Amino acid sequence: MFDDFLSNKNSWHNTEGPLSRIIFSSRLRLARNLADVPFPWKATTAQKEAICKKIEENYRKIPILKDSFFVRMEDVAELDREFLLERHLLSREFLTSLKGKALIVSSDERISIMINEEDHFRIQFITAGFELKKCWQILNEIDTQLSKIFSFAFDQQIGYLTACPTNVGTALRTSCMLHIPALVLTKRINKMLEFMAKISFTARGFFGEGTQALGNFFQISNQGSLGFSEEELIENISSVVNQIKDQELEARDILLKKHRISLEDNVWRAFGMLRHARLMNSKEALAHLSMLSLGIDLDIIKNLERQTINELFTIIQPAHLQKIENKILKEEERDYIRAKILREKLS
Amino acid sequence: MFDDFLSNKNSWHNTEGPLSRIIFSSRLRLARNLADVPFPWKATTAQKEAICKKIEENYRKIPILKDSFFVRMEDVAELDREFLLERHLLSREFLTSLKGKALIVSSDERISIMINEEDHFRIQFITAGFELKKCWQILNEIDTQLSKIFSFAFDQQIGYLTACPTNVGTALRTSCMLHIPALVLTKRINKMLEFMAKISFTARGFFGEGTQALGNFFQISNQGSLGFSEEELIENISSVVNQIKDQELEARDILLKKHRISLEDNVWRAFGMLRHARLMNSKEALAHLSMLSLGIDLDIIKNLERQTINELFTIIQPAHLQKIENKILKEEERDYIRAKILREKLS
Repeated sequence: MFDDFLSNKNSWHNTEGPLSRIIFSSRLRLARNLADVPFPWKATTAQKEAICKKIEENYRKIPILKDSFFVRMEDVAELDREFLLERHLLSREFLTSLKGKALIVSSDERISIMINEEDHFRIQFITAGFELKKCWQILNEIDTQLSKIFSFAFDQQIGYLTACPTNVGTALRTSCMLHIPALVLTKRINKMLEFMAKISFTARGFFGEGTQALGNFFQISNQGSLGFSEEELIENISSVVNQIKDQELEARDILLKKHRISLEDNVWRAFGMLRHARLMNSKEALAHLSMLSLGIDLDIIKNLERQTINELFTIIQPAHLQKIENKILKEEERDYIRAKILREKLS
Repeated sequence: MFDDFLSNKNSWHNTEGPLSRIIFSSRLRLARNLADVPFPWKATTAQKEAICKKIEENYRKIPILKDSFFVRMEDVAELDREFLLERHLLSREFLTSLKGKALIVSSDERISIMINEEDHFRIQFITAGFELKKCWQILNEIDTQLSKIFSFAFDQQIGYLTACPTNVGTALRTSCMLHIPALVLTKRINKMLEFMAKISFTARGFFGEGTQALGNFFQISNQGSLGFSEEELIENISSVVNQIKDQELEARDILLKKHRISLEDNVWRAFGMLRHARLMNSKEALAHLSMLSLGIDLDIIKNLERQTINELFTIIQPAHLQKIENKILKEEERDYIRAKILREKLS
């Protein structure tokens, strides 16, 4: 299952968007719950099954979802579940139990709908680059269409009801994945993180909640949505992301002007490791790919396609490697295959 | 001065000797003092000058030294002094003061005679590979010839008298420079060093006395020579070096059989760094060159001349780089030039 995702030319992973050198991806996620069914943590398996069944029968009527696929999570093999997680199509929490859960994914992987995660519906739109407004248009459209099929729990005073109170209100989570190596290299990142905390934004690592920042990727999200309209939330994060982007550009400029040789050294060493190592874990690979990406941005490395690096960021992940090799691999075997793929793609 | 040493095709640095993959070089050093002049630390400048003058007038009569050059240390520029030190032609101690000191070096750099170091004469023979007996033949010949010109301090009971009591007796210091990366990688090196200490041998780093072992090079020497004949001393160290060589070969075999991929990873990463870095200090360069050298020995790296690596071990040193560039370089400038030379020579 999902094998064609590996060569999905249609996937947003294979595209570039506005400012995508720094803003790797934009993602919006909407939580919705049915008015007449308990939240998933309280609902019976039969109740959750009924939601799955109803959406399975109806989702193709929504024009924007007509090319999507629907799958019950119990039918998804363990490796495929990890694979979908690595492609940002579902959350780690969604995988803690599988009964009564289903997933809808559009053919370009921009839209995914988790059914019976923490809420009955978690609707995500993700795309390359800095595209929050476009994301919102489409997400809003899906919401409108879904609300014709289902009746959502909504309170005139506080807005949409959600399982976790931090999501009450618009129930909209906005986020951008930023690649900001120069802020890390110039050690300005800590000030940036302090500033984020002050204005109630969170900055998380590449693999989402609870994980360390890897490869100089930081996922910036709003904390809570109560008291703001969707447009305001998007305006807020856009403004924050724009500020960070400007700081990153300034830091890149300083690196080029004041620390050029040491910057080139970092970039070429990363390239040297990626081109020659025989064993490499994901963490190290991400760090080197990040430097290589910066090297391409700053014209230090030439004759290398940015698309190759973007693809590598995704396929060096453990489940991807196992899908490529079409077998379960132990950690050291993965490190070997990862190094092999990196050498081949970058030669 | 000494510029032609940089391209000295005749130098022992550009040769290979028996087992030189593991036994990088063999070196013997003989201390001799004049019977009628105080040891250098006690002698007047005039007395030391007189020795220099006498040898300057006479050394060409010794057939084996007829192509050698003689130089007073006061006439040697600071950079050249460091350069000679890096080529193992003199000791760090020899450079603490320069008055009344002179140096004789043969055109192949195998023979060097420090005049008025700790002793009036410190006569060294150094060559590539495991060649202690040949070293001794030549050193013995030089000693015989010198004793026709000078009268050496000798005691029938205890042998040759020296400034430091540890050298009394034959006044012969025997040593071999070993390249034993597999003993380091397999963590057997500590047992080896403990064993060395027990049998009164010392193991020092690449740059001799008081320095750390770098690049997996260890210099093995006898401690004291009293009570042994020259032949016994040479027999002793030969036996120790043979044992270490056998252990190193065994460790290489284990690496190949049990840890091949991780070994290849180490070797190729070293190559990747050497081929791509833009800044590299001597310590890092030595470590990577050591791995590369092992990679050539074990046929992991092909199409790369061993001679290139041997040359690099020498020319990446600070004074060598400055001689090559023909100017004084700051540390960061050296790191840049070093990385550049490594990339060029290994491309």
